[in-house]
Amino acid sequence: MVTNETKRPISPGAEEELGQVHSVLDKGEVELVDYVGSDRTVARAARTSYQGSEGKSEEADQRLILRLWKDRHTSPFEMVGLTFRIRLPIFVMRQHVRHRTASLNEWSFRYTECPELFFVPDHDNVRGQGKTNKQVGEGKLDEDAATKARTLIDGVNHHAYKTYRLLLELGVAREQARVVLPVSAYTQIVWSMDMRNLLHYFSLRLAPDAQKEIRDYAIVMARIVKKGWPMIWNAFAEGNDPLDQ
Amino acid sequence: MVTNETKRPISPGAEEELGQVHSVLDKGEVELVDYVGSDRTVARAARTSYQGSEGKSEEADQRLILRLWKDRHTSPFEMVGLTFRIRLPIFVMRQHVRHRTASLNEWSFRYTECPELFFVPDHDNVRGQGKTNKQVGEGKLDEDAATKARTLIDGVNHHAYKTYRLLLELGVAREQARVVLPVSAYTQIVWSMDMRNLLHYFSLRLAPDAQKEIRDYAIVMARIVKKGWPMIWNAFAEGNDPLDQ
Amino acid sequence: MVTNETKRPISPGAEEELGQVHSVLDKGEVELVDYVGSDRTVARAARTSYQGSEGKSEEADQRLILRLWKDRHTSPFEMVGLTFRIRLPIFVMRQHVRHRTASLNEWSFRYTECPELFFVPDHDNVRGQGKTNKQVGEGKLDEDAATKARTLIDGVNHHAYKTYRLLLELGVAREQARVVLPVSAYTQIVWSMDMRNLLHYFSLRLAPDAQKEIRDYAIVMARIVKKGWPMIWNAFAEGNDPLDQ
Amino acid sequence: MVTNETKRPISPGAEEELGQVHSVLDKGEVELVDYVGSDRTVARAARTSYQGSEGKSEEADQRLILRLWKDRHTSPFEMVGLTFRIRLPIFVMRQHVRHRTASLNEWSFRYTECPELFFVPDHDNVRGQGKTNKQVGEGKLDEDAATKARTLIDGVNHHAYKTYRLLLELGVAREQARVVLPVSAYTQIVWSMDMRNLLHYFSLRLAPDAQKEIRDYAIVMARIVKKGWPMIWNAFAEGNDPLDQ
Repeated sequence: MVTNETKRPISPGAEEELGQVHSVLDKGEVELVDYVGSDRTVARAARTSYQGSEGKSEEADQRLILRLWKDRHTSPFEMVGLTFRIRLPIFVMRQHVRHRTASLNEWSFRYTECPELFFVPDHDNVRGQGKTNKQVGEGKLDEDAATKARTLIDGVNHHAYKTYRLLLELGVAREQARVVLPVSAYTQIVWSMDMRNLLHYFSLRLAPDAQKEIRDYAIVMARIVKKGWPMIWNAFAEGNDPLDQ
Repeated sequence: MVTNETKRPISPGAEEELGQVHSVLDKGEVELVDYVGSDRTVARAARTSYQGSEGKSEEADQRLILRLWKDRHTSPFEMVGLTFRIRLPIFVMRQHVRHRTASLNEWSFRYTECPELFFVPDHDNVRGQGKTNKQVGEGKLDEDAATKARTLIDGVNHHAYKTYRLLLELGVAREQARVVLPVSAYTQIVWSMDMRNLLHYFSLRLAPDAQKEIRDYAIVMARIVKKGWPMIWNAFAEGNDPLDQ
Repeated sequence: MVTNETKRPISPGAEEELGQVHSVLDKGEVELVDYVGSDRTVARAARTSYQGSEGKSEEADQRLILRLWKDRHTSPFEMVGLTFRIRLPIFVMRQHVRHRTASLNEWSFRYTECPELFFVPDHDNVRGQGKTNKQVGEGKLDEDAATKARTLIDGVNHHAYKTYRLLLELGVAREQARVVLPVSAYTQIVWSMDMRNLLHYFSLRLAPDAQKEIRDYAIVMARIVKKGWPMIWNAFAEGNDPLDQ
Repeated sequence: MVTNETKRPISPGAEEELGQVHSVLDKGEVELVDYVGSDRTVARAARTSYQGSEGKSEEADQRLILRLWKDRHTSPFEMVGLTFRIRLPIFVMRQHVRHRTASLNEWSFRYTECPELFFVPDHDNVRGQGKTNKQVGEGKLDEDAATKARTLIDGVNHHAYKTYRLLLELGVAREQARVVLPVSAYTQIVWSMDMRNLLHYFSLRLAPDAQKEIRDYAIVMARIVKKGWPMIWNAFAEGNDPLDQ
């Protein structure tokens, strides 16, 4: 990536991350493509309300950030923002898009053709149905069942994609041909969120009852935040870091 | 439906609509299930800023509503809201959910099983690929191609649903089994939006370049607004009613 | 108020409230003017995701609402909404308007003249400056100081209003004459918020560190919610009702 | 300002602006303090939906941005954001804060004391009341009236501030003493907005019926956008640049 000079605040940890592509699931990707603001940006924004405090030490900033978070004085956290490029299956995307405070651009399969890129769970990650919590997957299926499940899922993916190509060859419009694509199909988004709402996203999507496939995406993004905005992460994770579990 | 007494403003046209189920596409539905505010609510909210004007005539209200809309003074339109129950294919839902100002609850296929309910385009609505606008479907495919396309789509729907059932029988968690479902699968939402944002939704989704399948939903909802909130619809559609085209 | 027949869900407690004007501070008012949805609306919206459960008992609804709140599954609470008419001093309004999820219409002093209506704290509510929490007021000032403070505040109110009238008589535009009005001046809003965001507002504005003058408004609105939506209030206030403190 | 190296996209025009303090009104200020994204960021975000188009020329980017804006495909514009420090009178702030999509931190006069900094209109900018549009100020008052108006406004400002200090000396809490401050008092905010919503703000606040005092702020910010994001400004202002009027 090209390097430029800027007068903007920078986060050294985030700079290291820019352009690094992280793998998620079997064919997914997460990449930080832009950001605004550093840890100190939060402290500086807060001090607009708390005047007269330039030239504060890093320790003072960390104390302030901890207190802001504890007092639920969250607006200064909106002055920091991250933009990710994410490749993810449609069923994960369908949960992602529910976070309404994000900005989002997605591949349009009205405009371009869907590539042959489908999710199949790893062999040791085919899960059984939860008994107590009716909503979640629990435990691993035995080897045979897992193999069978993978073959079945793969079969639908192939059949659907072959049919998709046939429909296009028949002359069917892309916007209609796409209806046969399963929600295992990968799509790609540019996804931008301010830090306040990103932390809220983490608090829901890193939780134990989140679906593993979406939690895997949240974990990668949370690690990037921890690296690039360590003071903010400390405040969020104080005494109970979800990345240590 | 039970009838109750209320001191709230009512819209007679909306009252008639409550509980009426409208069919959309092959298996879709739209039903108005709740609402708040009438035409006059907009005028009354605006007069909070324009004081001293109770007991105004309907003509004065209509004039005010027209002027508010023309002057883009849209906040009074947020005091009216509609709540719909909508059954729609996932590919339509994926566009719906992009309207971030709505409130939304959706069936969760993590929690319950997906019913066997899939979209197949009508025979005379299998469209070809647009040439000038690369994004849209244009014209009808010939009879043979349309028949073939419908058979192909139906084939994927059946195969996917059979596989979905097999995965559940194998013991695979619902949250994973669902990945084989095509975006033609119907889901159901409760969808609530204030009038300002609903009109913005109409201006995008009733436009000629909107996909026909989502426009069909927008048309049904627009007719309900026209019937229940005729003054507001007049202001929105003045001189160019998208429902007359 | 006129009574109408409606097929919409109603809240009996909210119906009693409609049109009741509650006094707040020295000249403030709060009045419920419209609403949408009852307790059961939340349960019904949630069951769109949890299918197949019409005809449930009230006990089942209450259990569901408690669980939804505890699990932070808050979207069904957005299907209920309240609209208030509120007369409040500008300094309270300036905090109110920070709740960005609300819809709002306010008197415009560009368009009409400001009435002579200003806040002066009650004699036994002139507070001293907090020592430990630098942000809040604490304790009462002694009788003499309170009397003096009230006279001083009243003096500015009168001088400012007299000057405001003089400026208008000079021919100065309303939009400029208003700059002399102190933030003790009362304004009026129509304010609409869904229940999810209203509960969030309560959690911040009923807290001990909220300014007393805004907490007084929050208390009146919270009592209306408790009366009209008792199951929702139970879930919010479980084991720790802020109205009992 | 310190210069750092960054791998992020930069806008050369915006870099020049960082740290430049622009004067507005008699004592107001606007300063760009941070930003994210350049013109090309919009094109790149759009191409996530329009795949396969790295290495495009600047001309192709400009054409795409023009088309996106014309087609109201506005989500890619949300990937660019600007953060300003703004010093502005409370009556201007009260209009600013109505733009709910912004992030905002403001001086708190609960926490710190208000400085003696009040708006008085310039001698040649004391306006008369509009006749046709009842909302706006129109024309200039004659010399004598203008002098008188300025003296009157100045008088309230001084009296209010002197009283404010007296109240603090009496021991009255800051959160109560502030109620005597007129809306001519200057406050300070950090204000962050994405480009899509900033352009919407311009379309309302650069309009002829906006109050001159807020339009003055919008003009300074619009010039910064024009300098730092010329392609976006071209698309917004095509054929009718509000800065040329």
